[in-house]
Amino acid sequence: MFEKERLGEYEIKNLKELSRFAKGDIIKMTTLAGTGHPGGSMSSLDLYLVLFFFANLLDEPRDKVLISHGHTSPGVYATLARLGYLPLHDVIAFFRKAGSPFEGHVVKGTPFIDWSTGNLGQGLSAGCGFALSAKLKRENSHIYVVMSDGEQQKGQIGEARRFAKKYNLSNITTLIDYNNIQISGHCGKVMPQNIVENYLSDGWDVIEVDGHDHNEIYKALKRARTVDNPVCILANTVIGNGVGFMENTEKYHGNPLNPAEYKLAIEILDLEDDLEFYRDRRKGACAWRSSYKEAPMSIDPGDPFVYRDEDKVDNRTAFGKALKDLGDRNISKGQLVCAFDCDLASSVKTADFAKAHPDCFFQAGIQEHNTATMSGAMSTTGILTFFADFGVFGIDETYNQHRLNDINKTNLKLVTTHLGLDVGPDGKTHQCTDYIGLTSNLYHFKIIIPCDPNQTDQVVRYAAKENGNFLIGTGRNRWPVMSREDGTPLFGKDYTFDYGKMDVIRVGQDGAIITYGGMVIRAIKIADAFEKKGISLTIVNMPCVRAVDDGVLAELMKLPFICTYEDHNINTGIGPFIAQELLKRRYEGKMESFGVKDYGPSGETDEVMAAEGLDVDSMVKALSKVVKRKRRSKKAS
Amino acid sequence: MFEKERLGEYEIKNLKELSRFAKGDIIKMTTLAGTGHPGGSMSSLDLYLVLFFFANLLDEPRDKVLISHGHTSPGVYATLARLGYLPLHDVIAFFRKAGSPFEGHVVKGTPFIDWSTGNLGQGLSAGCGFALSAKLKRENSHIYVVMSDGEQQKGQIGEARRFAKKYNLSNITTLIDYNNIQISGHCGKVMPQNIVENYLSDGWDVIEVDGHDHNEIYKALKRARTVDNPVCILANTVIGNGVGFMENTEKYHGNPLNPAEYKLAIEILDLEDDLEFYRDRRKGACAWRSSYKEAPMSIDPGDPFVYRDEDKVDNRTAFGKALKDLGDRNISKGQLVCAFDCDLASSVKTADFAKAHPDCFFQAGIQEHNTATMSGAMSTTGILTFFADFGVFGIDETYNQHRLNDINKTNLKLVTTHLGLDVGPDGKTHQCTDYIGLTSNLYHFKIIIPCDPNQTDQVVRYAAKENGNFLIGTGRNRWPVMSREDGTPLFGKDYTFDYGKMDVIRVGQDGAIITYGGMVIRAIKIADAFEKKGISLTIVNMPCVRAVDDGVLAELMKLPFICTYEDHNINTGIGPFIAQELLKRRYEGKMESFGVKDYGPSGETDEVMAAEGLDVDSMVKALSKVVKRKRRSKKAS
Repeated sequence: MFEKERLGEYEIKNLKELSRFAKGDIIKMTTLAGTGHPGGSMSSLDLYLVLFFFANLLDEPRDKVLISHGHTSPGVYATLARLGYLPLHDVIAFFRKAGSPFEGHVVKGTPFIDWSTGNLGQGLSAGCGFALSAKLKRENSHIYVVMSDGEQQKGQIGEARRFAKKYNLSNITTLIDYNNIQISGHCGKVMPQNIVENYLSDGWDVIEVDGHDHNEIYKALKRARTVDNPVCILANTVIGNGVGFMENTEKYHGNPLNPAEYKLAIEILDLEDDLEFYRDRRKGACAWRSSYKEAPMSIDPGDPFVYRDEDKVDNRTAFGKALKDLGDRNISKGQLVCAFDCDLASSVKTADFAKAHPDCFFQAGIQEHNTATMSGAMSTTGILTFFADFGVFGIDETYNQHRLNDINKTNLKLVTTHLGLDVGPDGKTHQCTDYIGLTSNLYHFKIIIPCDPNQTDQVVRYAAKENGNFLIGTGRNRWPVMSREDGTPLFGKDYTFDYGKMDVIRVGQDGAIITYGGMVIRAIKIADAFEKKGISLTIVNMPCVRAVDDGVLAELMKLPFICTYEDHNINTGIGPFIAQELLKRRYEGKMESFGVKDYGPSGETDEVMAAEGLDVDSMVKALSKVVKRKRRSKKAS
Repeated sequence: MFEKERLGEYEIKNLKELSRFAKGDIIKMTTLAGTGHPGGSMSSLDLYLVLFFFANLLDEPRDKVLISHGHTSPGVYATLARLGYLPLHDVIAFFRKAGSPFEGHVVKGTPFIDWSTGNLGQGLSAGCGFALSAKLKRENSHIYVVMSDGEQQKGQIGEARRFAKKYNLSNITTLIDYNNIQISGHCGKVMPQNIVENYLSDGWDVIEVDGHDHNEIYKALKRARTVDNPVCILANTVIGNGVGFMENTEKYHGNPLNPAEYKLAIEILDLEDDLEFYRDRRKGACAWRSSYKEAPMSIDPGDPFVYRDEDKVDNRTAFGKALKDLGDRNISKGQLVCAFDCDLASSVKTADFAKAHPDCFFQAGIQEHNTATMSGAMSTTGILTFFADFGVFGIDETYNQHRLNDINKTNLKLVTTHLGLDVGPDGKTHQCTDYIGLTSNLYHFKIIIPCDPNQTDQVVRYAAKENGNFLIGTGRNRWPVMSREDGTPLFGKDYTFDYGKMDVIRVGQDGAIITYGGMVIRAIKIADAFEKKGISLTIVNMPCVRAVDDGVLAELMKLPFICTYEDHNINTGIGPFIAQELLKRRYEGKMESFGVKDYGPSGETDEVMAAEGLDVDSMVKALSKVVKRKRRSKKAS
């Protein structure tokens, strides 16, 4: 815990020996697996040793060490094993073997690994999320982010630096393994960069050290804890350090040693060649399992707000009001609720929350990549975390950040507004017509698109109290409050949102429209138009766009015609999903999909919908052909 | 064209008058449309005026002006109209009206708009693509990128800066409209940033000017053309400049003036209030149309290479060899072929091309966002442009950059390797199981996943000669050469790749497996196993994963069972797509999908496949139930 001014001789000797042995471990596990990254593991190794040796790993609130360049996993495993936190034999034997927790890139759940990494550039953002969380909870803990040098090229790191500076995250320290070699060669040739100037230009402190001098590393780490500013430790290292022929060459960045090289390296390191022992052991199975305990939360979801149409509340405002209510109820009871914004609070309606709970609102600027990762990381720390943004920024721009959140099984509540053609006059670049198509690739995200403010309110509260990642989506425009014939709200006091349930808005005999969001009101108008022609249509609202309601589907199977109708790319929305479900059930009627077929023009939403053939008139025309035909063929049969 | 040292009195007076009128135009069009961004349009206006007045717009090779902050479109339209390049009355009357080319964010095809923008942070990357293209073609033209201040927060800009410095793109000049206000208020409060230091830290020159002083702007632009370095002009401006009550307030960033404010502003500007004239005109339709002429290309696709299995060539190597052959054939004839890499050339197999054509190969470092945009922009300039990367970086990380490429109807050949679980021991973060799921959201991308090196070779040549965006995907492992029973290659000399065609690899009676890529060989093994049980399966290779081959599908309809089998997220691959097609055709057999259901472990590909139940043995087990049952029920009927 960095009490001493500097390391004693004995400690240094000890660390040097650990380093020598750990280098052997790295070489053994990569050679045995026939895959992996020995070079960088060896250049980062002394940083890992000092860090994991002296950081507070055991007393809560403990320090966290994030490994941004996850491919140096052999260095991390060797260090943790040599320090007694991992089973050494298993680490060496089962590296990169399917079923073992010692994966190619570090995975959350291994002791002291709090974040799965592997795609470069995201580690500092995750670090910001953890550091912010620690500050909010007034925890005296420190967040370390170890990164590679090539990785510094990623723009997201600049975003994270600026955020850390703005919020004075002095509890964060980065260590850069500056071995100056990346896959394609010398960093200065691959992409010249003045890393020190980059950090200084964003207001950080920088300390340069010899990254293989344990005492220098120790002193820098100690100093970094006292500086009232985020600190970058630039560690000058040597790739393949300790094994002459591996040093300063890119060859061993991503390639293990061959048998001859292996023998030579073990000789150089003066270690025992026990590879056969591990080769035998690898034939078995790794019994060691990793585990991760989620930080507990205790959310009071509150009572739903019920809006009447005359309240003129749009879905994004309903989200904003529910968010504020969640904040009001929970923060005072000690359950933190936080919201992140990327310069759109007034549009995505987090401004009221921000005003009421300024300490729990984070203005991250136009830095969506950083914000997506940061909010994901924070969401794993027992804080109910929302990230609200326009669809094109919160989903399209940040898909891969959410993919890593998903891999990390975060607990993020992602709320995106301005979805679909509903965005109106902003035009093509702002038309997010892929929110389902993208998010449904994420294995652990649930997607919900409510259709009115009352449903929105309930969905927000539902997602708040359920564990896991949610995407909640709204448009830009106000959609009317759904009501029963007696004028009472359909999603009022007696309604409870239930994930996976479809809402039958109207029952008809001649066909069905399955839809969601802002198209529900249009579907009602379409059905009204058909009603006048003596044709009755069922309308189903499907807020959970990737879940199936067996009961409702069973009813729909009886109808001669089913269509999906959505403000979304026709190829990737609910259309193919419903088709697959209908085929499974051997539906014998006719099915059609209606959705967006290309980027639309810039104009009022109704104009844009008309241009895409998705407005009420175009739909009535299009459906008239099919629904009529179906009735005729019915008579004919 | 910047001949004079400084502007004359008359020119300055003229520009001032133009500025005053154009401000009125901005206010009129946004007020009339009831939407738009007047504030920033007015702060950028004087930059636009000087730039469009003095840049070489008319003589080829002409200068290009990219508007990175596309929401200042009213300023651009007003400038171009006042300079005589756009019809003033239409610009004012039809701004943001559906069907008019004067969209909310500037759209390619409007005169002198070469790149559609709207999502911040990508403009400089596009500028790098154009600047690089101009340098390669030895064109004496200059690329200007106008950006906002808030936008500087985006990390992608840092990536582009470093690239521009590395390749000494001294033909690029950025102008930053530093009005210090973004949507949420003062930039220094939203996200403190030292923009000048950021640019200097990446080795750029910076010139600061008063962004409303035409002469200062002129002189800076003139100087920037002579400096042998990329130059950033930081223009100190005032949001809402020229109309007192609009100045220095974020309110008018994204809000038009109301009628009273409008009247006041027009009075302040001493202009005629002719809004009614335009209001009447807006009731009609905009007759003016934009158009864009693609830069012509003349590609010699060459003759396909034919590999035998003993050549031991994997698909990514086959891509690399085809790429080099395309380079060899075309570059010498004056048709440029370029390839971009993000520090993975040795893995994605662009290294041979790089060696043979070093001037046409660009090592962009670990900066995928910048590279995706840059390569997209270059692909519109008559250069056959490839961007090769791992799937997780080339698709997942850069989806939104490709979305803007797609909106810009680029001509990019995106080649991604290491797709799916085939990536093997790198583990979860490197498993790109969403390449179809993501890319199929892009309206103008064609996706092709060839199944062996011979098909890969033909697909690369096909995409090279066809216009438009292509995603070509390969795995990491070597997949065998597909051959006929006589041992000749299935995709040999007598084969011609035809987009949309499915390949029937084997004909059976009891069911069909539709698959692609590395699963084809597994499907053959599965069919072999069933053959022994007296059950024969059809195997269909579907390289064009979002196209339907009616002929082949018609044959499949006769079979009692069809399954899809893919190394891809089961929810977003070919499964639902095929289901929809089968439902459309009223398929009465049984259909099942097999694909990836969660992130897999880190291990050898076969181990990982087994963990996901997608290896040959698991599949035989799973299919045995269905195929057998089908045959029984057949007998029963």
